[in-house]
Amino acid sequence: MDRDNILLTPGPLTTTLRTKLAMLKDWGSWDTDFNALTAKLRQQLLEVIDGQQDYVVVPLQGSGTFAVEAAIATIVPKKGHLLVLDNGAYCKRMAKLATMMGRQTTVLSHPEDEPISIAAVEQAVIADSSITNIGLIHCETGTGIVNPLAAVSDLCQRLGLGLIVDAMSSFGALPISANDIVFDALISASGKCLEGVPGMGFVFIRKAILDSCEGNSHSLAMDLYDQYIYMERTGQWRFTPPTHVVAALAEAMKQFIEEGGQPARLARYNNNCQVLLDGLATLGFKPFLKPEYISPIIITFLAPQDSHYDFKQFYSLVKAAGFMLYPGKLTAIETFRVGCIGAIGEKEMRQVISAMHFCMQQMNIEIN
Amino acid sequence: MDRDNILLTPGPLTTTLRTKLAMLKDWGSWDTDFNALTAKLRQQLLEVIDGQQDYVVVPLQGSGTFAVEAAIATIVPKKGHLLVLDNGAYCKRMAKLATMMGRQTTVLSHPEDEPISIAAVEQAVIADSSITNIGLIHCETGTGIVNPLAAVSDLCQRLGLGLIVDAMSSFGALPISANDIVFDALISASGKCLEGVPGMGFVFIRKAILDSCEGNSHSLAMDLYDQYIYMERTGQWRFTPPTHVVAALAEAMKQFIEEGGQPARLARYNNNCQVLLDGLATLGFKPFLKPEYISPIIITFLAPQDSHYDFKQFYSLVKAAGFMLYPGKLTAIETFRVGCIGAIGEKEMRQVISAMHFCMQQMNIEIN
Repeated sequence: MDRDNILLTPGPLTTTLRTKLAMLKDWGSWDTDFNALTAKLRQQLLEVIDGQQDYVVVPLQGSGTFAVEAAIATIVPKKGHLLVLDNGAYCKRMAKLATMMGRQTTVLSHPEDEPISIAAVEQAVIADSSITNIGLIHCETGTGIVNPLAAVSDLCQRLGLGLIVDAMSSFGALPISANDIVFDALISASGKCLEGVPGMGFVFIRKAILDSCEGNSHSLAMDLYDQYIYMERTGQWRFTPPTHVVAALAEAMKQFIEEGGQPARLARYNNNCQVLLDGLATLGFKPFLKPEYISPIIITFLAPQDSHYDFKQFYSLVKAAGFMLYPGKLTAIETFRVGCIGAIGEKEMRQVISAMHFCMQQMNIEIN
Repeated sequence: MDRDNILLTPGPLTTTLRTKLAMLKDWGSWDTDFNALTAKLRQQLLEVIDGQQDYVVVPLQGSGTFAVEAAIATIVPKKGHLLVLDNGAYCKRMAKLATMMGRQTTVLSHPEDEPISIAAVEQAVIADSSITNIGLIHCETGTGIVNPLAAVSDLCQRLGLGLIVDAMSSFGALPISANDIVFDALISASGKCLEGVPGMGFVFIRKAILDSCEGNSHSLAMDLYDQYIYMERTGQWRFTPPTHVVAALAEAMKQFIEEGGQPARLARYNNNCQVLLDGLATLGFKPFLKPEYISPIIITFLAPQDSHYDFKQFYSLVKAAGFMLYPGKLTAIETFRVGCIGAIGEKEMRQVISAMHFCMQQMNIEIN
């Protein structure tokens, strides 16, 4: 009766029992055992991006948005000017938090169904020489679109701009290597493709810019420079860490490595994505994005053109069958989203397709 | 071999297995089941302070310090002036974060071994009519001293000042009732006397001032007004909640109520405190504070005047015996701290006293 539903969302995700069992222990946050746990996790995080040489990683309490705000606050100078490349809801959120903290912010708008245009970015930067930093969302979870990280990084290198990458939902799944690209900061969180539980973020910061970050932050709690310096000196987090969340992420990281790291995780998610696309195509569901823009993270589907369809009812029926879908985030078009990430595989994707088929029949929705 | 050590710290604490087991489930953060969990928890939190009539409670991701910063940012107007009543490390932290976010901040310093003086506060407020808000730490965890919350509240009422109370380590244990005192905001966190796991804070805000809080915050993530409005409208957290931490707190809250609420919890902690004081007195340990200032939360003890004593070694030996002490936070005097809070009782206090006795013998420390 009480089996957990499978989460087909962009996080919190379905995690393994092994990851959750790691939370059945109370750690002293000041103790050397916990410091060792944090240190090993940070080392392993750096290895995911081949960043041991040129980067540090700073964990932060709170949700991913806290880590994004902290990265902007710590990296963008008080007199800096951030250009946010916008093609979705999370881009708009980055611009909003940067504006609220008092950083000059410009938004370069794109249609939600198209990746960031390199030509448009170059034009915007050339037109305004006060721009110091670029803010990019790697995979915009609002639609699931993947943006051209390598090309934006190349452009930033060429134009001498600092790049801040929100890689919240892509890190661990899509390839990101410091051997191939340069960025000043890159942000992700525990409850995404590493398949930990939510409650902490982490920010990779390029060593070369660390010293320039001192004193930028408007916030004590979100000052990643201060968090970094304190952690290097003491091995401890500045303020109480979410010890159980950290322990779960450390256990999730072990499983990430055992699975084969980022390439293996991407292969599993790619397969989840393909099974889902093929299966839902037979039910008449069409993805919102062109095939080449779809990420194996989360897929936005157009709502069926059938008067019997109602998302709330559909969601409830699919939930009663054991699966949690995710609402759409577009204002103009009715959509819903299905996540491909978490401790799930082909079996679960086939199960949810069957469940959705059954629920369509219950609702008398025709297959087109 | 692998039994958990008992944490005698100000948090993270030893929690019950039942609380930890609540984390063995993955919740959809958007789902109605999780919204219901949040709503019930918020209702129960309000009941702890008899605040259903006049207060709302806003949960926030992150550590307790994040919630303190969020409360200052949300409550103190941009042109306001905060007077922080300082007799310890956490008072200084409140002043620091208020200053960093750009609020005019004045610190009223007291000795660390004395509670806040009402006369001194009144004098300071009368001398500077620009002061709009008072910041008070109820139980200053740096030493464990309890400050006179009711008297400060009365003074604020009399002088027309907004009171912000950091009740991080006192909430749930020391009596705080909206029937007796008035405050604009009061802050605590999951991993303290409610005996949840760390990872979220919560702030009680007086309904009468809520409307005036719009637009105060410099931070999107920490804007409690925005968090409140969104949560009232949707039932959801604005940004990904630490779902497992919330579930653990909900389970801890059930046990808090079953135990008999705040009076029962205080009685257990008072007993822990008395057993500890009596037991350590027989080993020659003297508390740093006068008896009347000691809280049953955490007690600061003077280090033994014995050349064989060394905190690191003592800590390690006591840890090997199964108990985690806490370092002192005073700069001028060598001390250590022992917590009385968490899912522990008289049995554990007697065990740690025996363990400390044994470790003193191992280190050849004489009992004075």
